[in-house]
Amino acid sequence: MTDSDAAPDLADDAMERFPIPDYEDLPEDLQERIAEETDRAGFTPNVFSALSYKPSHFRAFFDYHDALVEDTALEREEIEMIVVAVSGVNHCYYCNVAHGALVRIYADDPLLADQLVANYRTADINDTHRTMLDVAVKLTESPVEVEEEDLEALREAGFSEEALWDIASVTAFYNLSNRLAMFAGMRPNEEFHTLGR
Amino acid sequence: MTDSDAAPDLADDAMERFPIPDYEDLPEDLQERIAEETDRAGFTPNVFSALSYKPSHFRAFFDYHDALVEDTALEREEIEMIVVAVSGVNHCYYCNVAHGALVRIYADDPLLADQLVANYRTADINDTHRTMLDVAVKLTESPVEVEEEDLEALREAGFSEEALWDIASVTAFYNLSNRLAMFAGMRPNEEFHTLGR
Amino acid sequence: MTDSDAAPDLADDAMERFPIPDYEDLPEDLQERIAEETDRAGFTPNVFSALSYKPSHFRAFFDYHDALVEDTALEREEIEMIVVAVSGVNHCYYCNVAHGALVRIYADDPLLADQLVANYRTADINDTHRTMLDVAVKLTESPVEVEEEDLEALREAGFSEEALWDIASVTAFYNLSNRLAMFAGMRPNEEFHTLGR
Amino acid sequence: MTDSDAAPDLADDAMERFPIPDYEDLPEDLQERIAEETDRAGFTPNVFSALSYKPSHFRAFFDYHDALVEDTALEREEIEMIVVAVSGVNHCYYCNVAHGALVRIYADDPLLADQLVANYRTADINDTHRTMLDVAVKLTESPVEVEEEDLEALREAGFSEEALWDIASVTAFYNLSNRLAMFAGMRPNEEFHTLGR
Amino acid sequence: MTDSDAAPDLADDAMERFPIPDYEDLPEDLQERIAEETDRAGFTPNVFSALSYKPSHFRAFFDYHDALVEDTALEREEIEMIVVAVSGVNHCYYCNVAHGALVRIYADDPLLADQLVANYRTADINDTHRTMLDVAVKLTESPVEVEEEDLEALREAGFSEEALWDIASVTAFYNLSNRLAMFAGMRPNEEFHTLGR
Amino acid sequence: MTDSDAAPDLADDAMERFPIPDYEDLPEDLQERIAEETDRAGFTPNVFSALSYKPSHFRAFFDYHDALVEDTALEREEIEMIVVAVSGVNHCYYCNVAHGALVRIYADDPLLADQLVANYRTADINDTHRTMLDVAVKLTESPVEVEEEDLEALREAGFSEEALWDIASVTAFYNLSNRLAMFAGMRPNEEFHTLGR
Repeated sequence: MTDSDAAPDLADDAMERFPIPDYEDLPEDLQERIAEETDRAGFTPNVFSALSYKPSHFRAFFDYHDALVEDTALEREEIEMIVVAVSGVNHCYYCNVAHGALVRIYADDPLLADQLVANYRTADINDTHRTMLDVAVKLTESPVEVEEEDLEALREAGFSEEALWDIASVTAFYNLSNRLAMFAGMRPNEEFHTLGR
Repeated sequence: MTDSDAAPDLADDAMERFPIPDYEDLPEDLQERIAEETDRAGFTPNVFSALSYKPSHFRAFFDYHDALVEDTALEREEIEMIVVAVSGVNHCYYCNVAHGALVRIYADDPLLADQLVANYRTADINDTHRTMLDVAVKLTESPVEVEEEDLEALREAGFSEEALWDIASVTAFYNLSNRLAMFAGMRPNEEFHTLGR
Repeated sequence: MTDSDAAPDLADDAMERFPIPDYEDLPEDLQERIAEETDRAGFTPNVFSALSYKPSHFRAFFDYHDALVEDTALEREEIEMIVVAVSGVNHCYYCNVAHGALVRIYADDPLLADQLVANYRTADINDTHRTMLDVAVKLTESPVEVEEEDLEALREAGFSEEALWDIASVTAFYNLSNRLAMFAGMRPNEEFHTLGR
Repeated sequence: MTDSDAAPDLADDAMERFPIPDYEDLPEDLQERIAEETDRAGFTPNVFSALSYKPSHFRAFFDYHDALVEDTALEREEIEMIVVAVSGVNHCYYCNVAHGALVRIYADDPLLADQLVANYRTADINDTHRTMLDVAVKLTESPVEVEEEDLEALREAGFSEEALWDIASVTAFYNLSNRLAMFAGMRPNEEFHTLGR
Repeated sequence: MTDSDAAPDLADDAMERFPIPDYEDLPEDLQERIAEETDRAGFTPNVFSALSYKPSHFRAFFDYHDALVEDTALEREEIEMIVVAVSGVNHCYYCNVAHGALVRIYADDPLLADQLVANYRTADINDTHRTMLDVAVKLTESPVEVEEEDLEALREAGFSEEALWDIASVTAFYNLSNRLAMFAGMRPNEEFHTLGR
Repeated sequence: MTDSDAAPDLADDAMERFPIPDYEDLPEDLQERIAEETDRAGFTPNVFSALSYKPSHFRAFFDYHDALVEDTALEREEIEMIVVAVSGVNHCYYCNVAHGALVRIYADDPLLADQLVANYRTADINDTHRTMLDVAVKLTESPVEVEEEDLEALREAGFSEEALWDIASVTAFYNLSNRLAMFAGMRPNEEFHTLGR
């Protein structure tokens, strides 16, 4: 937890394999973004600390992230469901836990994250979301096999053309994100393990 | 090929599964970026036409791309080698061909792209680049198995800490890019098939 | 939660694909075992409700389980670590969550279960346990490749011959257990999601 | 072959990686069980010798086995077909050969075991058994993908609810058994290679 | 390119892992076959140089090849499409490039080879050829799953019984050829990279 | 068994998916080869009946086979060991059984075939043959990963350069043969199941 008057503190153990810079040494725009996020969450999510290692990538990563959650035909709950199902398949500890918390909060369901991490096929979700996750997981595990019929299944489930694009984009972005987090050894904040349970 | 006085023309068949907007209808910043790219290449690479479908994603995608190639401890030739090896493993037609052209150009080697698409292990590359591609392909195919010893191998091959981060970031980004291109059915421009041969 | 004076109540939703019998209709030995377990845990773990479907299998399953945890060269914490690492690899929702709670309790570590579910390679464990889980996961994913050198690695890590047998036996048993739970659609009690966090 | 007056002899080479105890040193209940089995088969199947290494596990293993073959909605021939198909997929030498003999005997078919070891899809079996083995092999290779529709297929093939449970239980148990046999290096008795041919 | 009066020259770098003999030292029948091929192509394809290492295998290999292309119910274009799709899946540099050239020439399509190397599912081919390649790739990647229904799909696509046999035979032969080329480190002639583009 | 005075009889059930011609209708060279083989074996191996479907392929297949067993640096026993290990991995019923008989005969070992079908790693073979089968199975399952170090391992195990080529060629040929047998539904003669046991 951070004291609201104090500068955010970037946890040294936010990732295992690269050093975490000091908040004070960051460019102003990164400081601002981190301060905002810290205010909102009550702590500094470790992905912000980790990506501070390289400011140009910090900006690119969060700008892409923000575009995905702000300009979208999907509900935020749907986005987080995709993230956790994809991360479960890729076995990413950071994203399982940090986005697991987000899925619990946005879907207002304390069990859904553990279900999606294990096997989205047996999660308590409706048929529309089942189809959405079928495609997201196929695009993750075997993109070479994705075909027009997968897009057609999404359309039949009621998704718009833009939603199809967004489902693919979120899936693709977390295939980036999982790999970066896993390579760098990012560690979720302890808070994420219990948030929304 | 485009006439230098004319506005760029976004090819209708740049991707198979989403519509391509008209150049004239794009936001000014996209028009500018596309015009520049078209001038440089002599044609409009289809990825620009395809991503115009959703301008907020266009910006995020190319900003991340630009960060990866502009603020990097890697040679551009190394970046393109990673892209083609990753895309070969993921079986992405668009990236095999478009970045295959770039690898031929940046590495000044007409054969290297076909080698990397097939099997980076038998490509004509030095030991340093072999280690680089070992890690990039492992992070692509089996991120769950990437460990400290993989980073150590890169260090022993002479890469700096920042270069390690950059190798992972390029790999991660093209795991995004491949999936987006494959989902959308992006098609490389004919020009890419022969450039640099 | 059960009232200590009342008979245990077998949850109807303990598994999705087979009916749960009434506690009152169970053979006396099953009633006794369930009552004991319910007293100990404060609720009836759903695996007991689920296996009540077929009493002869209930007895066989829990007798094997009891032999594994009672006559063993391993610490209980080690057994539960194996269970969660194996279940994470097999993607078993029931065992991830129910044994995740046990690993938190026996290892007195609120984070370890989420780490093991995701990727035992990046969990906060010592080298001895790393070797133990390397073999358990290999025996789960690719038993055909297990060889003398895997047993040798366990010996070098300090495990006795009996411990080697026990590591394999726990791994093998949860390859049974995961499959039975997944086929039957067993659901962990809500309590397990938060126990020990 | 054993002399009917003599005590059974536990073969030293029944498994490669753990020592085999002397029959005389075993607890009485194990001696009895082994004597019975030896009388019935005319030799002591090596799995009995191997599991004697740890008597509590011997009891648990054979009690579970006995429950599976004695309290079942399946024909014994069906059980052995599942065992051999599962063991073929897991590449377990002991179970391929020992249960191969049992499948030849119970199905009264000298060719069936070799067919099931290779590929159950091309074995001479009826459609009902084909469906049964489809599910058993899927539950073995990819339990995460088993869904309600797999159970439905079994029902449509004519299996009762209890038979569904039993098919899953036999499959699950031999996923235990294969892994234990493979880890311990169990070797089938020579007699099994030719029995029933 | 070879001078038509000169003897063919077997390139020393036609394969990396075995020595290439001198043309003059080859048995007369090999010399004749190589001279013919060199006349036809304008250069000596490296597979001829490589297989000269063992004349009895040279004869067997090319006799089988010739039977496949001369006594067939398939168009030559179809044969080359199978070869490139199979080689793409097996990641064979030699066959991707050398037969990529042939597919460009026989199908009179400069883009088709790069499409087939990447992913036959997104290549510009008709439904008949799509079915043909579905079966060829399945027989390559997972022969254990090929069943009567795969042959039926080919029949429904209009292929004769003999064509079915031929599709399987070409697929099977290039599973041989890919493995031999990959083991020996065969390298395509530079000419193949650009032929037919 | 055939009567030595009678013409060989090609079994109608030699393969499931293509018709078997009459012996009398075959070209003379096929008749001769089949008659010889039938004399030698005492029955007509079904692969001869099956390949009679297309005489040009019959000739090519057996000429290649003959080159592999007649002009070789390997012992015939070694060739058959490779064939059975490869066929076990590919799950080919015909080759497991027919070449299983040959391995029993040539290695004079009644157990070896069942061991190799299951898992060559646990077969009773010396270190030299273990290395030989490591490479053969790797070249079968994952040719893309075969590298110079695999050839080096064979050299260190004592194999000559020509033996390396021959190991790869036998492996490659049975990757052809397995696929053809599996596609056509070839069935081993009953005699093969017991020969050499």
